[in-house]
Amino acid sequence: MKISVIKIGGNVIDNPEKLEEFLQQFAKFPGYKILVHGGGVMASRFGESLGVMPEMVDGRRITDKDTLDIVTMVYAGLINKNLVASLQALGVNAIGMTGADGNAIRSEKRPFKEIDYGFVGDVKEVNTSMIRHLLDADLVPVFNAITHDGNGQLLNTNADSIASAVATSLSRGNEVNLYFCFNKAGVLVDEKNENSIIPLINEDIYAELRKENVIHSGMIPKLDNAFAALQKGVNHVWIGKAENLLLSTKGKLSGTVIERHRYDLY
Amino acid sequence: MKISVIKIGGNVIDNPEKLEEFLQQFAKFPGYKILVHGGGVMASRFGESLGVMPEMVDGRRITDKDTLDIVTMVYAGLINKNLVASLQALGVNAIGMTGADGNAIRSEKRPFKEIDYGFVGDVKEVNTSMIRHLLDADLVPVFNAITHDGNGQLLNTNADSIASAVATSLSRGNEVNLYFCFNKAGVLVDEKNENSIIPLINEDIYAELRKENVIHSGMIPKLDNAFAALQKGVNHVWIGKAENLLLSTKGKLSGTVIERHRYDLY
Repeated sequence: MKISVIKIGGNVIDNPEKLEEFLQQFAKFPGYKILVHGGGVMASRFGESLGVMPEMVDGRRITDKDTLDIVTMVYAGLINKNLVASLQALGVNAIGMTGADGNAIRSEKRPFKEIDYGFVGDVKEVNTSMIRHLLDADLVPVFNAITHDGNGQLLNTNADSIASAVATSLSRGNEVNLYFCFNKAGVLVDEKNENSIIPLINEDIYAELRKENVIHSGMIPKLDNAFAALQKGVNHVWIGKAENLLLSTKGKLSGTVIERHRYDLY
Repeated sequence: MKISVIKIGGNVIDNPEKLEEFLQQFAKFPGYKILVHGGGVMASRFGESLGVMPEMVDGRRITDKDTLDIVTMVYAGLINKNLVASLQALGVNAIGMTGADGNAIRSEKRPFKEIDYGFVGDVKEVNTSMIRHLLDADLVPVFNAITHDGNGQLLNTNADSIASAVATSLSRGNEVNLYFCFNKAGVLVDEKNENSIIPLINEDIYAELRKENVIHSGMIPKLDNAFAALQKGVNHVWIGKAENLLLSTKGKLSGTVIERHRYDLY
């Protein structure tokens, strides 16, 4: 079973035209597939309209009880169910899920050290047999950023981490590729030039690029995450724009492919 | 496959103690089971806090775009996912679903006659093979009142109708019993006396009771719905209080059992 795990963020979800374009590409994307979505901008805007202001520390949202209710409503309700209905209209048998549904993703409340992040969870365990069962039934899981702790508590979880955890867990026994759609065309040599995509990065190239200070600091956590997923068994990680997703299946330069040692995605 | 479809309404969901008691009974309820929930009071309250006032005509909510977004967030997000997390904590492998998920329930926007109900759907088709597939995998579907039209539009649907439609569709090839939990102990001879439960109603008894004006007018649509479900193949319909649900499996008087002809639930 070859499985693609595809992650989209707020920049796609908040833009109706980009979203429609993405969903059409996702519908045509071949093989078994899983969608993972965030939606932070929409949740912040909605929270503000309720008088709940987003509180961020080091780029991470602090999730108090009210904020948890809001992200549960916006991610698992509004965004997830509209995505599922749109995919159904495109002939994709999507099934929207939090980590609580089918006990798909169990997480652990982040311990209080210097900062109390509130109801934020770090992924502990992915229920791969249940997810494979859904894929076998030709269902296409659509995960949002809500998980649970197994004791009745929902937890707000980083959507990139969910995508990585689902991909690495499924990679035992399957070929799994992981696609991160974001607002750049890939890893760029020149942040201001969308044509300066680095087509391939492996551990040797990455070491070289970092030594020469070519990698923009904002990309380093993403690349570190990518290499961590590869270490745990994921075949390839792709980073690029949502609108270029399908190109990647056609062997065309569409973004940056990250692999451990050699280039064999196509 | 013997399947129980159990419906709870806002009176249980809005009351944390009643809800906890119900969920514990639901967890112990034997056999294949499906939960269907509404949640009207919570949605209205939440909408009001956003300045969206509930508009009701003849006891039915008018669903404009803002109201649809609110019920999607509250039913499919907040209520559904907290129910699922609570059931998981009780050892029930619950999976929360709208009608859009897995194309479980397709509905049709109610046509504009005298009243434009807005984004309100009437159930057209239930995907029984997908639901059976979930039950076979020991998953427990938890449905809320949101469905879809198959063309990308979510629709607000009556939760009693969803419970009836799911039960009748599954009754082809399975023994299905339908349980409506509401705020009375059953069909009562005297509305003010909770001990005046009529234990059994069949078509003959119902005709007799109506002739003698014993049935309270508010119960007539519920009973008509129950008989419609029985006509379409459901074995028995039970009406009673959520907290008496488990008694019904122990052959004890727990509410009103409705059957077509004869008494053979236990």
